[in-house]
Amino acid sequence: MKEKHTPSVRISGGRFMVIGGASLVGSATVEELLRCGASEVRLFDNFSFGSSDAISHIISDPRVTVVSGDILRLPQLLAAAEGLDGIVHLAAFMTLSMDQDPWTGLNVNIQGVQNVVEACRACKIRKLIFASSNAVYGYGESVKGDLVETTPFHSVGAPPAAILYGASKIIGEQICRHAYQKHGQHYVVLRYSTVYGERQHYRAANALYIVETQDAVKKGYRPKVVGDGSETKHFVYVGDLARANRMALESDATDVVVNTSGPEPITTLELVRLVADLSGRPDMEPELVRPDPGKVRLTSGGAFRIDHAAAKNAIGWAPEVSMREGLKRFLAWRDRTEEKISQS
Amino acid sequence: MKEKHTPSVRISGGRFMVIGGASLVGSATVEELLRCGASEVRLFDNFSFGSSDAISHIISDPRVTVVSGDILRLPQLLAAAEGLDGIVHLAAFMTLSMDQDPWTGLNVNIQGVQNVVEACRACKIRKLIFASSNAVYGYGESVKGDLVETTPFHSVGAPPAAILYGASKIIGEQICRHAYQKHGQHYVVLRYSTVYGERQHYRAANALYIVETQDAVKKGYRPKVVGDGSETKHFVYVGDLARANRMALESDATDVVVNTSGPEPITTLELVRLVADLSGRPDMEPELVRPDPGKVRLTSGGAFRIDHAAAKNAIGWAPEVSMREGLKRFLAWRDRTEEKISQS
Repeated sequence: MKEKHTPSVRISGGRFMVIGGASLVGSATVEELLRCGASEVRLFDNFSFGSSDAISHIISDPRVTVVSGDILRLPQLLAAAEGLDGIVHLAAFMTLSMDQDPWTGLNVNIQGVQNVVEACRACKIRKLIFASSNAVYGYGESVKGDLVETTPFHSVGAPPAAILYGASKIIGEQICRHAYQKHGQHYVVLRYSTVYGERQHYRAANALYIVETQDAVKKGYRPKVVGDGSETKHFVYVGDLARANRMALESDATDVVVNTSGPEPITTLELVRLVADLSGRPDMEPELVRPDPGKVRLTSGGAFRIDHAAAKNAIGWAPEVSMREGLKRFLAWRDRTEEKISQS
Repeated sequence: MKEKHTPSVRISGGRFMVIGGASLVGSATVEELLRCGASEVRLFDNFSFGSSDAISHIISDPRVTVVSGDILRLPQLLAAAEGLDGIVHLAAFMTLSMDQDPWTGLNVNIQGVQNVVEACRACKIRKLIFASSNAVYGYGESVKGDLVETTPFHSVGAPPAAILYGASKIIGEQICRHAYQKHGQHYVVLRYSTVYGERQHYRAANALYIVETQDAVKKGYRPKVVGDGSETKHFVYVGDLARANRMALESDATDVVVNTSGPEPITTLELVRLVADLSGRPDMEPELVRPDPGKVRLTSGGAFRIDHAAAKNAIGWAPEVSMREGLKRFLAWRDRTEEKISQS
């Protein structure tokens, strides 16, 4: 393995591409790179999930180029990656879409990463940031306590699509590692915990609680919690992840995999109460309901906490936005968006 | 999910296909199905790894058809699967080939399984047997004690190719499970432990100890053991696996995943001593050597045992051939083969 250059990439004056750039984290990452002085940011997306609404606030910046392309088409990636310093690769199928179409989902999450890594090699991209997930720790009651980067993958009892998703992320990480070992491709893998924030979509199974609760209480319904509400979720605010992507590019770290989670975990009951409270309806006590067997819900029996100490160590990152503050921003954004829609 | 028929498939008079049929386990499985009265066995292989030598003893049987095809080409699978009762899917890249070409390896081990499952659905195949691996438990010191079907996947410190292999098998299993849940495709997954036996090839990292030891002592060299020799291996004799494939087809079991391991584990030191003994050189004491960093070797620090009680329960199978007996057969076969080569 030959190290051709240092792994640190300067943002100011640099040229970058965010793959899956029209997504929640993607658009926030493009914003972050622009804010830190990038001279060019290419936003690569096939717009099959990501909508152009999510990027309307950034595409007016002359430094942004929107590339409508598909990571399964290597020539499109090769053309788009020409002359760049760094790539942030976010495009993926998550559990719900994986269940609907595992064929395409596995292609995107595995061959897609191979194509991105190949484009990095061919175009001599200095550093790749790959978005993995805490899904690599799996699901079920065995997932408990502090989840650190060495925690194994538990899958007993989880729906097939969830296991496919988690395993596809394990593979994506190793494709990066293999590329580093074979030809010195610098990379950092960030294991995102469940993301939420402005421009949230409805595709992430775990974030549904937030949007569904706000929708319910606004209509005057009691919000619902599946099970007894003791299930743990560990969210991270989208802006914190955009910052993590940027810091991973800037840092000296390479060939490393770290968790990027929010300050603290929360139970689903606490979460739903917090959303009801921030929506002005603290009186709306959540209703506990049985799981709908027809719906893919990810349940984790054990109480867990996703440790992010290694991220501090490797790339100097720690989450800054509390769940209350992040939710406040997110819910306010939803209110504004809805007003706009009802006015138009 | 609609169950259209019972999961039990009668071998006598039945029609089958073994995908990866020119492999070690493949050729033995074809033999087993013929022995039990199958009316037709199609041997599907692309012969990229499997050699025609491995099947010369069975292709003279008029019930055998050799299909030279590639599982990445769905039309070839669809044509070959027409009119069959059951399919045994064995074709895969293992760790060593995965390291050389992860691109093709992931395609074969993941999209290949999707193609096979799709052919089963389209051709209304009653039952699919999928060969998984104890690699789904991972690698390293955390892999210890009794490995049962619920043991998680450990990957810390393992080479990328080994993790890619293990995760690709986890995905293959879930592709089967997803097909069962979505349209009632009957299947049994067998998690093979390390296979050895007649017609052994040189591709399986774990089985190298046997062939390398015999080769060494025959030339008068002391056999080598990497590390201190305490590393556990849990082998299974090829004939026992052929029987497991056949019994999985016959059984009422469906939507189930079970380990198929040999009677007992063995340490590498015990193994090398046993091979030297059976090769007529019990005096050749193994030499302990340091690992070669350039070579992909799978080390497991912990002492483990792969439990096969669930297989007994689900498909009535237990291993029958002891390590000593199996090795005796295997080494005798190697001697005969070598004689043939040197005479020709």
